Amino acid sequence: MDPNLVTYIKGEQGRFNQLLIDYLNGLTMPPLLKKSTIYSIKAGGKRLRPILMKLTCEGLNGNVDKVYPAAIALEMVHTYSLIHDDLPAMDNDTYRRGMLTNHKKFDEATAILAGDGLLTNSFHSIANATCYSDKEKVFIVSKLAQASGLEGMVAGQSMDMQAEQGLTEVDELEHIHQLKTGKLLTFAVVVGAYLAGASNEIMDKIEQFGQTIGLVFQIQDDILDIIGDQEIMGKASGSDEGNQKSTYPSLLGFDGAMEHKNRYVQQAKQLLHEMKLEGTYLEQLVDYLSNRNQ
Amino acid sequence: MDPNLVTYIKGEQGRFNQLLIDYLNGLTMPPLLKKSTIYSIKAGGKRLRPILMKLTCEGLNGNVDKVYPAAIALEMVHTYSLIHDDLPAMDNDTYRRGMLTNHKKFDEATAILAGDGLLTNSFHSIANATCYSDKEKVFIVSKLAQASGLEGMVAGQSMDMQAEQGLTEVDELEHIHQLKTGKLLTFAVVVGAYLAGASNEIMDKIEQFGQTIGLVFQIQDDILDIIGDQEIMGKASGSDEGNQKSTYPSLLGFDGAMEHKNRYVQQAKQLLHEMKLEGTYLEQLVDYLSNRNQ
Repeated sequence: MDPNLVTYIKGEQGRFNQLLIDYLNGLTMPPLLKKSTIYSIKAGGKRLRPILMKLTCEGLNGNVDKVYPAAIALEMVHTYSLIHDDLPAMDNDTYRRGMLTNHKKFDEATAILAGDGLLTNSFHSIANATCYSDKEKVFIVSKLAQASGLEGMVAGQSMDMQAEQGLTEVDELEHIHQLKTGKLLTFAVVVGAYLAGASNEIMDKIEQFGQTIGLVFQIQDDILDIIGDQEIMGKASGSDEGNQKSTYPSLLGFDGAMEHKNRYVQQAKQLLHEMKLEGTYLEQLVDYLSNRNQ
Repeated sequence: MDPNLVTYIKGEQGRFNQLLIDYLNGLTMPPLLKKSTIYSIKAGGKRLRPILMKLTCEGLNGNVDKVYPAAIALEMVHTYSLIHDDLPAMDNDTYRRGMLTNHKKFDEATAILAGDGLLTNSFHSIANATCYSDKEKVFIVSKLAQASGLEGMVAGQSMDMQAEQGLTEVDELEHIHQLKTGKLLTFAVVVGAYLAGASNEIMDKIEQFGQTIGLVFQIQDDILDIIGDQEIMGKASGSDEGNQKSTYPSLLGFDGAMEHKNRYVQQAKQLLHEMKLEGTYLEQLVDYLSNRNQ
């Protein structure tokens, strides 16, 4: 990756982290709830979604300062989804990014409430951001709720829980991933473009771009589960095979999955070309998503 | 209760139920998630919060048709909170209103997701209601997220889980109830008044009124746990004592709790008088909250 992009990402990660922690520190919460929400926010992560939102807005010559409140809200929703996905009744994970999951560090009730609260306050933070018009607030709230709710991420997680071992069709697997992972990634780029005042044509293309890179992201996730370095990822590799979980490699074979991913990478780059965004950091980020090792 | 009010409430309950079911049926959801969300919505409840919102708007001569989308969203948030509160990691309840709790009827993962989804879509339904201006949408989203989030209901539930047996002060107990129950009841009357175009003076008083009836509601809840008829309530009575849970009667004695409640009833009626709302159904509803047997 271009060393300038690496520097850019590190800088943005630091900025997003600080904004998230400042937001939570500014709330009047019971001590345990505050500790628990800040713990999961500090557990880090790549801040991929906020960075995608900012790069999209920037690439389309928007005012990037307007990205921050929406990006913070998005990251709160993403964090809530990880806390709830890790629960014993869901994926029952002990570690995430090398740290104890929220319910292991605290307790299940606290983890459920931390997730509920982060989700709820994401909407509060958008509704109270001073840099948006009411029209912009309504657009962002509506899109975020649509992406993450009963027809979006929650639907994807429910289907994933139901169908873990029974999938035989790539289309079915892809549909689940589009809901579970793709919707929030798409929200990131759609809102980035919206805040840059993009045309309807660009809005359509950026939505397709979001869906496409969501699939690149997910296929690489499945591939990393096979070839990934446990220490770098901070979680056990090989868990999908152990769970007999349907994945791209299990349905298409390893080489088939790689080919499938590369086709989506090409599609994503074609879309960037059509939006005159080739050669931007966004294009490098597509390669990063495809080749990342964590 | 005035038989006209009884008829009014029954009619509104039917209308709210239908609107909620229509909303959920209109969404594209995986079958299990749809069954599970509709199950908990159909499990009924008194629709107290929506009715409070409508009576407030009506008493202040507002356009009551505007109440429905906000009231439906509120009831979705209330329903999510019950599903999550019933979970094994929280109150671990098997029955609610005489029916199996969501996680007993389905499974824990589904109950967590149904709750997450109802919460998320409450914001989506407000942002997409055709009868509100963007300004009204932002007001309602902001107030709903504030009432139910990390500084509201979620905070109250977290404190309740932490302090179940250890409370010795009525003030402490009251603070928890104000967050856990009072905030959403207050949201109901505040939004009802807002949609009626109430003055700032009325907005202040209606907020106090909401907090006051929230406490009336909660004290009666504690009293019902001692004297309530299990069949009417659809859940076990005496559970607070069994759990050694701090309640108004345990801290103030039975007569002390009754006196405490009656003082709040008088305060609530005084506030209604100051808002020129005495003699309305809202006044009768205060008596109902104080004397209800379920």
